[in-house]
Amino acid sequence: MGSLVILSGPSGSGKTSIAREVCKRIGEDKTMFSISSTTRLPRKGEKDGIDYYFLTKEEFLEDIEKGYFLEWAEVHGNYYGTSIKPIESAIKEGKIVFLDIDVQGFESVRKIYPNFITSVFVTTKNKQILIDRLKNRGTETEETLRIRLINALNEMKKIDEYDFLLINDIFEDSVEKLEAIAKVSLIKADKQNLEQFIKEWNETKSN
Amino acid sequence: MGSLVILSGPSGSGKTSIAREVCKRIGEDKTMFSISSTTRLPRKGEKDGIDYYFLTKEEFLEDIEKGYFLEWAEVHGNYYGTSIKPIESAIKEGKIVFLDIDVQGFESVRKIYPNFITSVFVTTKNKQILIDRLKNRGTETEETLRIRLINALNEMKKIDEYDFLLINDIFEDSVEKLEAIAKVSLIKADKQNLEQFIKEWNETKSN
Repeated sequence: MGSLVILSGPSGSGKTSIAREVCKRIGEDKTMFSISSTTRLPRKGEKDGIDYYFLTKEEFLEDIEKGYFLEWAEVHGNYYGTSIKPIESAIKEGKIVFLDIDVQGFESVRKIYPNFITSVFVTTKNKQILIDRLKNRGTETEETLRIRLINALNEMKKIDEYDFLLINDIFEDSVEKLEAIAKVSLIKADKQNLEQFIKEWNETKSN
Repeated sequence: MGSLVILSGPSGSGKTSIAREVCKRIGEDKTMFSISSTTRLPRKGEKDGIDYYFLTKEEFLEDIEKGYFLEWAEVHGNYYGTSIKPIESAIKEGKIVFLDIDVQGFESVRKIYPNFITSVFVTTKNKQILIDRLKNRGTETEETLRIRLINALNEMKKIDEYDFLLINDIFEDSVEKLEAIAKVSLIKADKQNLEQFIKEWNETKSN
């Protein structure tokens, strides 16, 4: 069995870049970066099937009704969701699945898979660095930037619920840390079938 | 700041050998294997200051009264305890401290350092292997062996309270796993000063 590594943190914290690099290093055959579905319009340079699955509102609502989503939410007027199927098959194949979701999404997913989740909150060293990164994207208005900063601080109040805080200061260090955490997530997942393990442990013939 | 890695598990699970090998690999300057104090008599080959600090009952009780122990317990008529001072200084120096204590000890220590403990329960693949290892030691009577097996199963019922279950099947694999867990324990410890981090994060001048 594989494992599920939850990544949360403000837009601009760099979590996606770190995770994609870790997938490359551990190997694409042993990892999966889960791609979310959304109804928001693609930003400049974003590609369907790589950054997101871009759906119409109609398609999205249909998928909700069919129970296709592990979790979904409406944020700033757009829908975002995570499909169950590809994640569950990847975990069965023994892969480490990275899932980029917000705090609210984490709280739902944690209830579904309490035993084999490793959770990481990624943020910048300070607020100014986050502001600079968001401004450099060139996609933020004064208003969306303000909202993102308010959300960032609100989400950071939940860091304590996560297993790890990853302060993304030097990219290379962050990649190394997430790689170590990801490998250890597989060990953590060994606890999944605890009752069965203890039962079988004790059933061994003792002579 | 360093971190504290708790190791619990039955006698004969091999936890001490694994941890000592991990200390060697990460480096003796970056790790510490905490040595317990005990009033029980040394077994054949055991050395004072390496396996245990062997104390008289009188010395032990004095240390309890002076508040020198992080935790202590009476087990099978003997006292066992962990001294606070060397652990706290090693953690301040940034070291990874390995602490071999039983489930009861873990439950006390966890209350003292809730935020920077990583806990690992080590056991064998099955009961027969544990029996063989204990017999090979040549120090067990029929009675002590029975008691150890009863204790092992009782302790295993608490595995769920630990971060990791390490099934010590192939020694080399176990060493690699504990090494990864130990390195990641330092990342986990980054969450220690969370309130201060969030405060400072938000205080950064935003222009």
